[in-house]
Amino acid sequence: MEEQDSADPYLPYDGGGDAIPLHELRGSNYAMPNGGGGAGASSSTHLLDLLEEPIPGVGTYDDFHTIDWVREKCKDRERHRKINSKKKESAWEFSKSLCDAWSGWLVVTLTGLASGALAGVIDIAADWLNDLKEGVCLSAMWFNHEQCCWDSNETTFAERDKCPQWKTWAELILGQAEGPGSYIMNYFMFTFWALSFAFLAVSLVKVFAPYACGSGIPEIKTILSGFIIRGYLGKWTLMIKTITLVLAVASGLSLGKEGPLVHVACCCGNIFSYLFPKYSKNEAKKREVLSAASAAGVSVAFGAPIGGVLFSLEEVSYYFPLKTLWRSFFAALVAAFVLRSINPFGNSRLVLFYVEYHTPWYLFELFPFILLGVFGGLWGAFFIRANIAWCRRRKSTRFGKYPVLEVITVAAITAIVAFPNPYTRQNTSELIKELFTDCGPLESSQLCQYRSQMNGSQAFPPGSDAAAAPGVYTAMWQLSLALIFKIIMTIFTFGLKVPSGLFIPSMAIGAIAGRIVGIAVEQLAYYHHDWFLFREWCEVGADCITPGLYAMVGAAACLGGVTRMTVSLVVIVFELTGGLEYIVPLMAAVMTSKWVGDAFGREGIYEAHIRLNGYPFLDAKEEFTHTTLARDVMRPRRNDLPLSVLTQDDMTLAELQNIISQTSYNGFPVIVSKESERLVGFALRRDITIAIENSRRKQEGIVLNSRVYFTQHAPTLPADSPRPLKLRSILDMSPFTVTDHTPMEIVVDIFRKLGLRQCLVTHNGRLLGIITKKDILRHMAQMANQDPESIMFN
Amino acid sequence: MEEQDSADPYLPYDGGGDAIPLHELRGSNYAMPNGGGGAGASSSTHLLDLLEEPIPGVGTYDDFHTIDWVREKCKDRERHRKINSKKKESAWEFSKSLCDAWSGWLVVTLTGLASGALAGVIDIAADWLNDLKEGVCLSAMWFNHEQCCWDSNETTFAERDKCPQWKTWAELILGQAEGPGSYIMNYFMFTFWALSFAFLAVSLVKVFAPYACGSGIPEIKTILSGFIIRGYLGKWTLMIKTITLVLAVASGLSLGKEGPLVHVACCCGNIFSYLFPKYSKNEAKKREVLSAASAAGVSVAFGAPIGGVLFSLEEVSYYFPLKTLWRSFFAALVAAFVLRSINPFGNSRLVLFYVEYHTPWYLFELFPFILLGVFGGLWGAFFIRANIAWCRRRKSTRFGKYPVLEVITVAAITAIVAFPNPYTRQNTSELIKELFTDCGPLESSQLCQYRSQMNGSQAFPPGSDAAAAPGVYTAMWQLSLALIFKIIMTIFTFGLKVPSGLFIPSMAIGAIAGRIVGIAVEQLAYYHHDWFLFREWCEVGADCITPGLYAMVGAAACLGGVTRMTVSLVVIVFELTGGLEYIVPLMAAVMTSKWVGDAFGREGIYEAHIRLNGYPFLDAKEEFTHTTLARDVMRPRRNDLPLSVLTQDDMTLAELQNIISQTSYNGFPVIVSKESERLVGFALRRDITIAIENSRRKQEGIVLNSRVYFTQHAPTLPADSPRPLKLRSILDMSPFTVTDHTPMEIVVDIFRKLGLRQCLVTHNGRLLGIITKKDILRHMAQMANQDPESIMFN
Repeated sequence: MEEQDSADPYLPYDGGGDAIPLHELRGSNYAMPNGGGGAGASSSTHLLDLLEEPIPGVGTYDDFHTIDWVREKCKDRERHRKINSKKKESAWEFSKSLCDAWSGWLVVTLTGLASGALAGVIDIAADWLNDLKEGVCLSAMWFNHEQCCWDSNETTFAERDKCPQWKTWAELILGQAEGPGSYIMNYFMFTFWALSFAFLAVSLVKVFAPYACGSGIPEIKTILSGFIIRGYLGKWTLMIKTITLVLAVASGLSLGKEGPLVHVACCCGNIFSYLFPKYSKNEAKKREVLSAASAAGVSVAFGAPIGGVLFSLEEVSYYFPLKTLWRSFFAALVAAFVLRSINPFGNSRLVLFYVEYHTPWYLFELFPFILLGVFGGLWGAFFIRANIAWCRRRKSTRFGKYPVLEVITVAAITAIVAFPNPYTRQNTSELIKELFTDCGPLESSQLCQYRSQMNGSQAFPPGSDAAAAPGVYTAMWQLSLALIFKIIMTIFTFGLKVPSGLFIPSMAIGAIAGRIVGIAVEQLAYYHHDWFLFREWCEVGADCITPGLYAMVGAAACLGGVTRMTVSLVVIVFELTGGLEYIVPLMAAVMTSKWVGDAFGREGIYEAHIRLNGYPFLDAKEEFTHTTLARDVMRPRRNDLPLSVLTQDDMTLAELQNIISQTSYNGFPVIVSKESERLVGFALRRDITIAIENSRRKQEGIVLNSRVYFTQHAPTLPADSPRPLKLRSILDMSPFTVTDHTPMEIVVDIFRKLGLRQCLVTHNGRLLGIITKKDILRHMAQMANQDPESIMFN
Repeated sequence: MEEQDSADPYLPYDGGGDAIPLHELRGSNYAMPNGGGGAGASSSTHLLDLLEEPIPGVGTYDDFHTIDWVREKCKDRERHRKINSKKKESAWEFSKSLCDAWSGWLVVTLTGLASGALAGVIDIAADWLNDLKEGVCLSAMWFNHEQCCWDSNETTFAERDKCPQWKTWAELILGQAEGPGSYIMNYFMFTFWALSFAFLAVSLVKVFAPYACGSGIPEIKTILSGFIIRGYLGKWTLMIKTITLVLAVASGLSLGKEGPLVHVACCCGNIFSYLFPKYSKNEAKKREVLSAASAAGVSVAFGAPIGGVLFSLEEVSYYFPLKTLWRSFFAALVAAFVLRSINPFGNSRLVLFYVEYHTPWYLFELFPFILLGVFGGLWGAFFIRANIAWCRRRKSTRFGKYPVLEVITVAAITAIVAFPNPYTRQNTSELIKELFTDCGPLESSQLCQYRSQMNGSQAFPPGSDAAAAPGVYTAMWQLSLALIFKIIMTIFTFGLKVPSGLFIPSMAIGAIAGRIVGIAVEQLAYYHHDWFLFREWCEVGADCITPGLYAMVGAAACLGGVTRMTVSLVVIVFELTGGLEYIVPLMAAVMTSKWVGDAFGREGIYEAHIRLNGYPFLDAKEEFTHTTLARDVMRPRRNDLPLSVLTQDDMTLAELQNIISQTSYNGFPVIVSKESERLVGFALRRDITIAIENSRRKQEGIVLNSRVYFTQHAPTLPADSPRPLKLRSILDMSPFTVTDHTPMEIVVDIFRKLGLRQCLVTHNGRLLGIITKKDILRHMAQMANQDPESIMFN
């Protein structure tokens, strides 16, 4: 290591320094300077060849680092060019190039297939486990309640819920179906199973895959924006998330499976992308697959492929070229069709809550719809504040140290409070479905007990507006209690250390509120059908108010208030109903909800959680509106040490290592000389250390005293100096620069659109400083009067 | 002008030159250099104030110039900040800020309303004029055929086409409805009206608004990418396009109204944006409105709001922030609902071709669907080549000098050949509708004459597969002839000097081909129902093949082949059927069609027309795959004159004017000095000339010998020198720079994503050259082996 290889001949070369290396200007009319004698030139070429072969490890990223989109995309184009140029060499190379071209479609197909299959499995398993809380099917243990009674021929259509094969726990253990004893027994078993599922779920998450908790969407947004979180989308996370999602849903906690399904789909996408070097070795390309996977996730969660694509576009993705749009659509469709083939809902429908309404809506109904929008916005704003405050408390106090206890407590409270109320006892998806459904002649639920049906009167056709019977009033009370219960429990549930989605609880809250408003309007229209509002549209006996539509509008409004989604939300709900007619009410409510919510704070729940966790996420939606300039943000600041820079040809290896060890920066600008401060390029810390390691291993004569140079040719050195180290191959010769006068809004725009990691600041051609993505995030926090140092990775 | 104001005191100032103007470094730890005495400072401040007020005209664009997106967006943020800071001053300012915030929604609402209304008017007028070719309604001249017979109570349902009020021309003129005489009379009148409409249309376009011809989508794409074409979206174009579109559609030419409707909607958007200074004064903001307008245009063309938004996103728009997505959706919905209220199709449906199919599709049908996709791709590739060849011929030969004659010739041939064949005689939209429709028991058309219906046999339910009767065979022949006719005529029609859309003819060709294939498969399944393919799915008497679905798949495939749209096309067709079940056949066909089409050339018809017309359009979809570097593309080239640069403080006005008059560049880099070549900023030619004009008018003492300076403070000058001219206010101090080593793929990416007009190239901090958007387009043409100079504005 320490011996000096002074025998190596170096050429006197004067092309470096401050001057432009003229010989590099291909296509210019400058003359080529003659570098020296023949022998020296060949030696220089030899050195060059040795060093310009790729150094293993250069160009990869550490965990919790930001990727450089531009570099990744360049790498991919380079790879593509290589394959294309080799294509004509042989049939084997040609088939390899074909395989490469099709690998994108293949990986999204596989992702779609796997997401659809997993979603089907999760649906079926969750249903079965959920029914296990109530009882078992004696004829076949693996049947859930509905399947159990399908096979039974002894039941009539009206009593399809009750069949001899299905035994509640009270019937099994106590041998009696009615009475207070059996009620308590069922109550106990319900709570017992709920607690068991919750305990199992949180234990599995805690022991095997801590990343499997939560909805995953904030982290996926951060990853897609170009951040590395190793293991977040790995196979362990996938396995544990799938299993614990089933358990968490079955435990009856106030959570849904929609957000976690996106995480599951992204895990599938990530795992399949490892099959193809095109995707596994390129972080930017991998993110294209993940965008498609998140579309597939929403597609199977709601049976809404187009909505899924728009969700991926609007809410999750960062870099979304048109090719990805098309592939996302394909992945979403494949996933949806696999799910339909599995047919977990038993209705051969793609859609979770398929509804069909038969009456149009009237203009005066916009008023209650907008009211529902206001409710949704208020709920969203309230939920975000309350949930974030609770999560912050969990993070900052000792309380967060006992996640298992917390989950069990919440599950116990949920189960105990939920059981007595039929609307909270049942599966939340089923509740939403019931609330969405219009009262038809076959509908036997409590919500549809109207006088006309009860009296058997045939004066009005079934489904027409009628006076509510006591059943409806009971249902209203129970629904109100369920609403309060859901609101409180959801705040404490989202953020627990189990997989937990927010879509279903939010929609349930909105659907309950909507149905209540809908029934109120309906009764108003029935009793006051001579009001000028109703007179024109609502004849007596006509079916002019559809309470189910109100439930749907309310669900959309509440989901919009929480997530601040707009177009994708409307399209998802539109795909549920399949009718363009109801888009206007939906839009009115969703827009109102967004505006009301934005008035209290522009962040959706996912952005709020990203900020809570301190991920370096530069939101593309938030506008930067301040007048600061690049020089106000760049480092070094007023009282900082001067910028750590490398010079292109007059540093020794010891000096370089000194700079690297004394600073923690991820990269260093390379300048011509300390005097001129002209920028040459940018070298990454990781690449420098890898290159030094590599050259020490492979090249003899590299000592601490070796000159390090980034120029094309070695600098002129005294004859006895040690062999120099050429690092040009790791130098990024096209670093992004802005002038110190550039407004920060433009800098932020450049960072967002190009996906930069850092940008150098110059003034009149001299290097002044550097701006990194984290500097920008800190600056934005400072401008929003937050403590800039508190936001990163706390 | 020529007198010298030597009395003006100038300060000795040494802060300029090559050094960093340290006093500008706010937030730095450098000391402020003292600029001079108090009196001098105040005079300098006076001078500064005078010059730093905005010069009228600076920041606007000439016709046929490229806009600078970054500058426009900065201007808008500046405006927004001003309004926000004034907001709290008074109630008036507050309401102004509210009005400003809502103006975006207002302008898209107005655009949606106007587009919907105009689409309704165009539909109704075109229908009426189209029926005028056949006859008139005696009871009310302003009724079309259908409306005329609606009012009549004398007709049965089956004969709803024939009613006494409706008289064909033969009945009116000759007094007889049957016989060869009346046939010839009707033939003559049909041709006469077609020719009259065509003549009127082309004359109006030629005399009043030459921009009203064609589909408009290539130009709108170019405008949205940041190009100025004055008058293209003006009120004259709107008026003439609306009128001539009706005439062109009614003339029976093989064209549709869908593309022009996008143009009409964009005109509405542009005109309404003039009501709001936020949009009228900012080219970038105006383009947001235009994106929304194009979504509204497609929305009313097909009754597909979501498809319209995706069309705008995928096909038309360049800069599409999420806010625009949401507003586009709103505009599309408003337009669709206005159209539905006008109800031009008389079925209270939003959708042009509403169809409902009752049978699912089977897996083996994917084979004919993919075949249809191949047909669509081949047709698209053939059409693009043939049409572009013909249009190039029209441009380059004398032939293009007689547009009126050309239109009349094409119209005459179309009318004469079209009349004898019922499938070409009727409106193309109606033809498509008929082809899409499934054969039900009420369907009386020739296409649905199957044996089972004819014999009155009740063995099989109506609609089930059956042997074709002679009517179907006749229809097949007529359809085949119609296919050939449409293929030939569409090639010659698209590009005529009348408004002409391509969607409907392409869809018609696909629908005809699809229906033919569908009937063939149906008959195959009927006669060979024991084949292993059909045996499993197709029982005897079951309705397993839906020829209408084949027509729809074929239409989508052909449209996809021509335009190379993918997601938006599938969504548009999905919105027509309203059923998710048929998305897989559609996707299979559209994907096949795109792949087959792309194999013959990656350009869609719109990109091909953009290139034909030489618009400076940098396609976001096309990947730049070459390995060239910025220095290979930048100007000056090898043998060029050196770059025209300005120095920051040692040029006289005469020298500056000399440079401006001797070059035609749109802007000039400003450097510190000729020796150091350090870049200071960039000044636009237009701004320099406006500023010089302005200072000559307003400031005394500006003579040819005056020193021009771009620095913060005036340079040190001899005592007797004339008053200097300060141009700092027009200097862009944050020009975009790249190094000469930057790969062109990154440069192209920067230009696309940030919407740049030019970019400066540096090496080690020295200015080397400049790259403009046109340099990039030239370079890309060169790389594709095209003549780089031939592509611009030929």
